[in-house]
Amino acid sequence: MISNKIILNQKLDELRSTYLQVRNYTEKICEPLEIEDYVIQAIVDISPPKWHLAHTTWFYETFILSAHLPGYKVFHPRYSFIFNSYYNNVGERVLRHHRGNLSRPTVKEVYAYRKYVDEAMMSLFDHYENEESPPWNEALQLGLQHEQQHQELLWTDIKYLLGHNPLYPKYSDALPWEEKLIDASSTSFISMEKGDYFIGYEGEGFCFDNELNRHQVHLEAYSIADQLVTNGEFLEFIEDGAYSDFNLWLDEGWHWLNNNKITAPLYWDKIDGKWMNYTLKGLMPINKNEALNHVSFHEGFAFAQWKGMRLPTEQEWEAANKYFKWGERWEITRSAYLPYPGFKTAKGAIGEYNGKFMVNQMTFRGSSAVTSPGHTRFSYRNFFLPQLQWQYTGIRLAK
Amino acid sequence: MISNKIILNQKLDELRSTYLQVRNYTEKICEPLEIEDYVIQAIVDISPPKWHLAHTTWFYETFILSAHLPGYKVFHPRYSFIFNSYYNNVGERVLRHHRGNLSRPTVKEVYAYRKYVDEAMMSLFDHYENEESPPWNEALQLGLQHEQQHQELLWTDIKYLLGHNPLYPKYSDALPWEEKLIDASSTSFISMEKGDYFIGYEGEGFCFDNELNRHQVHLEAYSIADQLVTNGEFLEFIEDGAYSDFNLWLDEGWHWLNNNKITAPLYWDKIDGKWMNYTLKGLMPINKNEALNHVSFHEGFAFAQWKGMRLPTEQEWEAANKYFKWGERWEITRSAYLPYPGFKTAKGAIGEYNGKFMVNQMTFRGSSAVTSPGHTRFSYRNFFLPQLQWQYTGIRLAK
Amino acid sequence: MISNKIILNQKLDELRSTYLQVRNYTEKICEPLEIEDYVIQAIVDISPPKWHLAHTTWFYETFILSAHLPGYKVFHPRYSFIFNSYYNNVGERVLRHHRGNLSRPTVKEVYAYRKYVDEAMMSLFDHYENEESPPWNEALQLGLQHEQQHQELLWTDIKYLLGHNPLYPKYSDALPWEEKLIDASSTSFISMEKGDYFIGYEGEGFCFDNELNRHQVHLEAYSIADQLVTNGEFLEFIEDGAYSDFNLWLDEGWHWLNNNKITAPLYWDKIDGKWMNYTLKGLMPINKNEALNHVSFHEGFAFAQWKGMRLPTEQEWEAANKYFKWGERWEITRSAYLPYPGFKTAKGAIGEYNGKFMVNQMTFRGSSAVTSPGHTRFSYRNFFLPQLQWQYTGIRLAK
Amino acid sequence: MISNKIILNQKLDELRSTYLQVRNYTEKICEPLEIEDYVIQAIVDISPPKWHLAHTTWFYETFILSAHLPGYKVFHPRYSFIFNSYYNNVGERVLRHHRGNLSRPTVKEVYAYRKYVDEAMMSLFDHYENEESPPWNEALQLGLQHEQQHQELLWTDIKYLLGHNPLYPKYSDALPWEEKLIDASSTSFISMEKGDYFIGYEGEGFCFDNELNRHQVHLEAYSIADQLVTNGEFLEFIEDGAYSDFNLWLDEGWHWLNNNKITAPLYWDKIDGKWMNYTLKGLMPINKNEALNHVSFHEGFAFAQWKGMRLPTEQEWEAANKYFKWGERWEITRSAYLPYPGFKTAKGAIGEYNGKFMVNQMTFRGSSAVTSPGHTRFSYRNFFLPQLQWQYTGIRLAK
Repeated sequence: MISNKIILNQKLDELRSTYLQVRNYTEKICEPLEIEDYVIQAIVDISPPKWHLAHTTWFYETFILSAHLPGYKVFHPRYSFIFNSYYNNVGERVLRHHRGNLSRPTVKEVYAYRKYVDEAMMSLFDHYENEESPPWNEALQLGLQHEQQHQELLWTDIKYLLGHNPLYPKYSDALPWEEKLIDASSTSFISMEKGDYFIGYEGEGFCFDNELNRHQVHLEAYSIADQLVTNGEFLEFIEDGAYSDFNLWLDEGWHWLNNNKITAPLYWDKIDGKWMNYTLKGLMPINKNEALNHVSFHEGFAFAQWKGMRLPTEQEWEAANKYFKWGERWEITRSAYLPYPGFKTAKGAIGEYNGKFMVNQMTFRGSSAVTSPGHTRFSYRNFFLPQLQWQYTGIRLAK
Repeated sequence: MISNKIILNQKLDELRSTYLQVRNYTEKICEPLEIEDYVIQAIVDISPPKWHLAHTTWFYETFILSAHLPGYKVFHPRYSFIFNSYYNNVGERVLRHHRGNLSRPTVKEVYAYRKYVDEAMMSLFDHYENEESPPWNEALQLGLQHEQQHQELLWTDIKYLLGHNPLYPKYSDALPWEEKLIDASSTSFISMEKGDYFIGYEGEGFCFDNELNRHQVHLEAYSIADQLVTNGEFLEFIEDGAYSDFNLWLDEGWHWLNNNKITAPLYWDKIDGKWMNYTLKGLMPINKNEALNHVSFHEGFAFAQWKGMRLPTEQEWEAANKYFKWGERWEITRSAYLPYPGFKTAKGAIGEYNGKFMVNQMTFRGSSAVTSPGHTRFSYRNFFLPQLQWQYTGIRLAK
Repeated sequence: MISNKIILNQKLDELRSTYLQVRNYTEKICEPLEIEDYVIQAIVDISPPKWHLAHTTWFYETFILSAHLPGYKVFHPRYSFIFNSYYNNVGERVLRHHRGNLSRPTVKEVYAYRKYVDEAMMSLFDHYENEESPPWNEALQLGLQHEQQHQELLWTDIKYLLGHNPLYPKYSDALPWEEKLIDASSTSFISMEKGDYFIGYEGEGFCFDNELNRHQVHLEAYSIADQLVTNGEFLEFIEDGAYSDFNLWLDEGWHWLNNNKITAPLYWDKIDGKWMNYTLKGLMPINKNEALNHVSFHEGFAFAQWKGMRLPTEQEWEAANKYFKWGERWEITRSAYLPYPGFKTAKGAIGEYNGKFMVNQMTFRGSSAVTSPGHTRFSYRNFFLPQLQWQYTGIRLAK
Repeated sequence: MISNKIILNQKLDELRSTYLQVRNYTEKICEPLEIEDYVIQAIVDISPPKWHLAHTTWFYETFILSAHLPGYKVFHPRYSFIFNSYYNNVGERVLRHHRGNLSRPTVKEVYAYRKYVDEAMMSLFDHYENEESPPWNEALQLGLQHEQQHQELLWTDIKYLLGHNPLYPKYSDALPWEEKLIDASSTSFISMEKGDYFIGYEGEGFCFDNELNRHQVHLEAYSIADQLVTNGEFLEFIEDGAYSDFNLWLDEGWHWLNNNKITAPLYWDKIDGKWMNYTLKGLMPINKNEALNHVSFHEGFAFAQWKGMRLPTEQEWEAANKYFKWGERWEITRSAYLPYPGFKTAKGAIGEYNGKFMVNQMTFRGSSAVTSPGHTRFSYRNFFLPQLQWQYTGIRLAK
């Protein structure tokens, strides 16, 4: 649920400028792409960039313009079928694994679609200029958050499609972030006392329904690392034969790695005896002092076992997160993605946003280098299937 | 972990008699079976009765007799390969989905194997007669608990194999339990106050490692039904079209029921316009006043949504379970099966018992009509994949 | 089509005695089995012995007794559902891959079913005693041939289920046939002249519809081996690395062996460095002088390539088969199983017998050690999928 | 095998001009495409247009330029890995079902690759100007035939990818062929006499190895239709319920259509009660007087059964093909794709061209509207899996 206060305080002018900024950043991410890159869907879990561009646009068209802008005509009658993702309430849709089969609409047409909707949105802002609290306020907030989430997916999906091409094409040498270097030998553990803590969103801003209600939890004493596990530490784990020692893995993780022949984080490859790492700047030797990246929950679990430690729960993470720096990687937790006490989904299609995925997923906390600026917060809950590696994910140990 | 106290207090004579009682009950369950029934594995999730009989025996042979009875010779050198279930530490094993392909050893040979091991166990008891605390004490406790769990699986797997036969054969008219009748209109809700509660095992007896550590949790105020949902209530849910309303289901549940064409609890069938229910006494009309049986977590979730309520968490269930009667069905909770604070697995093969399944499973609490007498307790945590229906499972609502 | 002449000439008394003989032989094959062996279906391609026993019985009940014996009552109303194999015209049926899931009816009940039908058949013979040509004559002929085919399947399926058991149980030391020894160095090639030959059944006896019409073909000159390839010759092929040389294999064969990790004929296993062979007499070292057994069409093709020769077509085989001894193995040909000129299927369920399988199968000619006595003839056409190994199949080379 | 005579007679100048013509036509076919259309692979059986463009080019580079042009440097060292199709002798390659995952090389780069190779080929022609019979003559012939085959695949694959897009985009209004109209009521049957016929290629030109040896066959009397089955006739078949009458289908065909929910030829769709047909000119109502298109062997078989007729064998087709017009559709035959007497494959990679597919495929004869001009001949043998519908295929009846 979107907390109402902040919406009421926001001025329409501010919202209009945020809207333009968000829309612009999405297109910025795609700038270095070739047209061909927009089209492909390398595996069922990722979507073609073209689809992200149009789907985020479809969200405003469907939930705001069609509902609230008098006289609005949809750009194309079949687009709703093509660019709906999983909102059953909005009607039938193209199956996820067919998204990469669609060469049309073309990239040009998709950009025209974006422009058409952006212009209509400007008319919408004009039309409601004098209203204190226009009826689409919440939907817009959600639409912007939604587009920011797809910005992050664009980063990960672009990396996936380029990184799985046998030519290892470079995305760009100029990325909007720098990898921080970590000295693993200086890692220390923050001690947290046994006691009651409050968990969940509190404040004046936007949050997702899954961050509410804010509620009290009791935690036993624990300690948590002040920095992330590095590539160098994980190389030791690999070289110790950990990927073939079943005692370190959950049963499901053990099957996963054997069935899929997983022997390293995604994008790591031993080429001519040397460990290489595909990055958006191209293929390069692994830097041992960078934070480990692209590991699944299962790998996080096994690494912690190997270290004789464990992963933190999401409550432990949240209770301690003011004492360490975060924001480089989504951080794996030992918590399943479940509703907080008092959790309520919204009515209708927008209510399909978070709640219906609350089974068989693990919670990841923090944010990553490719999370859109301003999108995350201390209480933000991300969730992934326990075997997925394609996100910017890393490990913070607890004990 | 097995708490040591109770082991120390148990006399060898008592243990010997418990051992014989447990072993005997297993064979009692199989008494009404035809030899053919012992052999088949209807689906990968269940095992042939013959396999349960031998696998429980293999446990004592491997973890107790071979280790602790001087001069013990295994019954057959290949049996370890055939009757190991999932203990990677004990060596390679027959794949789960091949268990139903094995006509040999015969049922007669399996019973001979049981007899051979039982006799060796008697020698073991004799051999250690004068020891206060023989070194196999914990393993035996676990072996007995393990066999009790397989007794329950025998009940469910026998029901599955007979209930999926087009001849609907009856198991027996004399069952060791009676279905209690429930008047759904009299259900009331127990109010529980916001506050701190203690969760996990406490006491002098045996418990599994997953019930520890006992720890404090903070719960918000809630209320929980004093009796289970009935067949009659669930029929209303079906007749309201709930199996085709995606708004009631988790995303994964919705896919599960569509991919598998699920339209009712397991063993319910509409035959010539009339709802029938396969039971161990044969096929009969659904009794609306019995507790609902054989529903998956997904169905429990959807039913609660439809009622405008929710499922309890396992902590809520445990905090309240002294105020209501339980023991007819394993009760679905909204909790994933995760480690308690301070959870530790045992070293070696026995440590593979619980911990390695702690991902992508839901916790079920209580016990069912087919749980072996004395096997359960208030803190017992069972766990099943969210789509499985073959257990004796039911729904208790919360709000 | 069944040629009518021979039916008219057959006396009822003879038929009655043939019937009893065929029925008896089926049960003879099963005599050494344990009850457990009757039940299991190791893979989808084979059926449980119990099913063969009942299915052959169902054939007489359905196509003869129900149609022609006044007052006949079926043994059990659900058996038709369970024991129909693939006759769509007779109604719905248990799916092939579920046959092994059925513990009931029991073996005892199945034998009772056989007895019931046999007695009814005796009444039928009595009832039609004075008729020259009873209306069920053709159906009975087909029923007997059908049961003989299932006798052969019993041999192969029993071998499969015992040979895939980790205990390698022996079927019996007394088999109704002896393996002939072959001296590979004495193989010579029979030269056949270019010219016209007649192919297809000719004579007074029974034949299947797929052996007709007898028709003329033109063959180029060729030569064909006078004896089968031996185990010893095939070991050389294996040891030459042939299973990993793609140039020897058809594309589909190459995928088959890689996807299924095939490295030898079925039942061959290299155990502690020694090639072993599972036979119905138990596991034993490979005898190099026996005819190779249990190879698929793909293996036959690759072996011939490796030898620089080829497989014969079925026309070449038939034109030459009076010049060599055959009857030990079904012999692989380079011919697909297709209709002869003028082929006609019978009307109704009996017409589903052969014709509907005439695509994507290869023809095998001759007969094997486990073919029922009197069941085969020079023009008999058997057919198997090109990857199946479970039959008694061998290789005769041509060039 | 390529017959040598014609190669010797061909002048280098002619070959050069044929080369340029063939190369040019490939690019002509792609002219109306958007860049996005080049990239996608809708199903595993088809390939992205970009891949066809590069793969045909790779063929000349690998088998001609690298082998025979002194000093030739490959355009890109990784292209052989990406654009090899199935030639195991040339090394590892991208798996067929990953071809659509490759956004790079870009379309522009692929055209640059074509240009680079074309220029090198011009140097090759110059270099060998004075040789009567340059050593790459056969490889070039095969390369040109190969590219023509991919031209046909481009037509079918482009139709597939556009025709499966929910926007039903039009390829172009100007196609290089016209659909001929057929009056079904005027179909007559050509009578062919029983006797000996010669089958296989004879002449001075190019032919594939699978058309040789020319050989004699004996055929029974038969008759064959003088024109193809029309859309109108096939609509009657559909409306008679033929897709749900198992008696009309081969067993494998019946499973195919039920598992894949096939109810009409590819590209036919009943929209708002009206039968529509996707064509390269867009979606339009079915024209009853056009030749039926896009049916599998299974549909051809069932249609012939329904008519009380049959499909011709490929020998019957070839013996009669001078008496009727053909060239609109590849025509389904009742023959499996098998070697002719005396068939020999070439050595090395080029030998992988035809022979290794000679199992589980059906032969199709003639040529279609999208076959490249000059590519086919009376003895040409095409082959497809019996369930594939994506080719321009039709039915000619026999009896």
